[in-house]
Amino acid sequence: MSQPLFATAALIGIGLIGSSLARRARRDGLFRRIVAGTRTQATAERALALGIVDAATTDLPAAVEGADLVVLCTPVGTYAEIAAAIGPRLAKGAIVTDVGSVKQAPIRDVTPHLPPGVAFVPGHPVAGTEHSGPDAGFPTLFDGRWCILTPEPGTDPAAVERVVEFWRRVGSNVDVMDAAHHDRALAITSHIPHLIAYNIVGTVSDLEEDAQREVIKYAASGFRDFTRIAASDPVMWRDVFLNNREAVLEMLQRFSEDLTALQRAIRRGDGQTLQDRFTKTRAVRRSIIEAKQA
Amino acid sequence: MSQPLFATAALIGIGLIGSSLARRARRDGLFRRIVAGTRTQATAERALALGIVDAATTDLPAAVEGADLVVLCTPVGTYAEIAAAIGPRLAKGAIVTDVGSVKQAPIRDVTPHLPPGVAFVPGHPVAGTEHSGPDAGFPTLFDGRWCILTPEPGTDPAAVERVVEFWRRVGSNVDVMDAAHHDRALAITSHIPHLIAYNIVGTVSDLEEDAQREVIKYAASGFRDFTRIAASDPVMWRDVFLNNREAVLEMLQRFSEDLTALQRAIRRGDGQTLQDRFTKTRAVRRSIIEAKQA
Repeated sequence: MSQPLFATAALIGIGLIGSSLARRARRDGLFRRIVAGTRTQATAERALALGIVDAATTDLPAAVEGADLVVLCTPVGTYAEIAAAIGPRLAKGAIVTDVGSVKQAPIRDVTPHLPPGVAFVPGHPVAGTEHSGPDAGFPTLFDGRWCILTPEPGTDPAAVERVVEFWRRVGSNVDVMDAAHHDRALAITSHIPHLIAYNIVGTVSDLEEDAQREVIKYAASGFRDFTRIAASDPVMWRDVFLNNREAVLEMLQRFSEDLTALQRAIRRGDGQTLQDRFTKTRAVRRSIIEAKQA
Repeated sequence: MSQPLFATAALIGIGLIGSSLARRARRDGLFRRIVAGTRTQATAERALALGIVDAATTDLPAAVEGADLVVLCTPVGTYAEIAAAIGPRLAKGAIVTDVGSVKQAPIRDVTPHLPPGVAFVPGHPVAGTEHSGPDAGFPTLFDGRWCILTPEPGTDPAAVERVVEFWRRVGSNVDVMDAAHHDRALAITSHIPHLIAYNIVGTVSDLEEDAQREVIKYAASGFRDFTRIAASDPVMWRDVFLNNREAVLEMLQRFSEDLTALQRAIRRGDGQTLQDRFTKTRAVRRSIIEAKQA
């Protein structure tokens, strides 16, 4: 087993991502000690029962005390309050990172609460499943996936390097980019797909009972592909949309314009437009398969 | 091996569905002889080379000669022309069925060309993959999936019964319903999901090259789930939309209204509406898993 990367890591939130990090870190000896900070006592107890952390508490300031790495693994809407609570108790030289799916908002919400000498290196592991909670995690979740880090200019390069190393050791490839760039890119790659999936599943759940039963019965014809991502954690996704409003609304606008064009083609019986459009999309699928991200 | 269900089956079109039927029928001895009728000589040769049919020809009237079962497995837009060509050569007592994803249009396009004594029992196996062509088929494609039959009132009940039996023997559960009902149900279950998937993948394929490369790289964050169904056969899907226009446009209208409501919630920062909506959709996913259609 190689040298631990950090002595004590505090994972604030121990759901799918937090518990996957804990499992991987345990497996590979990345930390000497892992403390979970949770919202509820039940989750703290569950994390301990699963044997994936050394300690767990709902007292977040106590959880981060003495930690040289703090990872925020809660919905991004909670960051400001958490940062305000833990800020005064962070050890000098500690590194704070997070796993949120948006990156400008965490910088806005966390940075003001950090004492001098504590670096914030925001991160987004582009990995996940539709399952939530401490039981949903597994140690290989990040293998071969990308993790995007968005440190502000002026962040201690040594802190960035240690966070890069951490994500590599849990199995990820690492990219570093500007937070605003991240939020635009992920709006179309991740946020809009989730919104659309939630939306069509929502449309179905508004149908009368008989019609809904049929949709479920025949779901293999296309619908089921959307329900998987529409089963993702509702609070986490609420916070993503509230915290990446501009980029999401802009991309949604493009999506809607394109959908209107398809709608018009269907109404007019314009088969050529439909066929051209449907042919173009096959190339994108091929690229994803080639990039091993399918 | 049990008794063959039909002596000679003509499969018009030998792509994903046709070749899966051929493979299953061969495996289980459902037909004494299988003839493929294809559009191109290359496909006819490929079907023969794969050893899944006894004969293959681009001469469709010759393909159906002497067949007691004819299965149309081509895009629904081709049915009228094919029915006009093969109608005069159909054997008395033959049964014609199809596998199209819409069901009113086939009745409109096929029925007028059938001689007396030939029954048309329209069918839709709710099964598929994103792959196309004679190499894409496999014998278990229909196992545990639904096949919907939509015979018109007055269709010979014995013919319907034989088609029901055929689909059961290839592994499907069978439902019988009215064609108009089918087209409304599948508009939301299958057609709109495909349209939306094609649309978002289309939106991405219009992005500039750098942005597109990023979407592909980070596709695991949601986007990839859409690309699978957006890789489905473009001509087949063009024909679905052209032939189920009203139901598709009506359901698209509902989808767009719901999306506008989500858009408004994002713009206003209305987290409660988002969370409520995202929570509701989880139940639909659970139902699909329980129905074993996930």
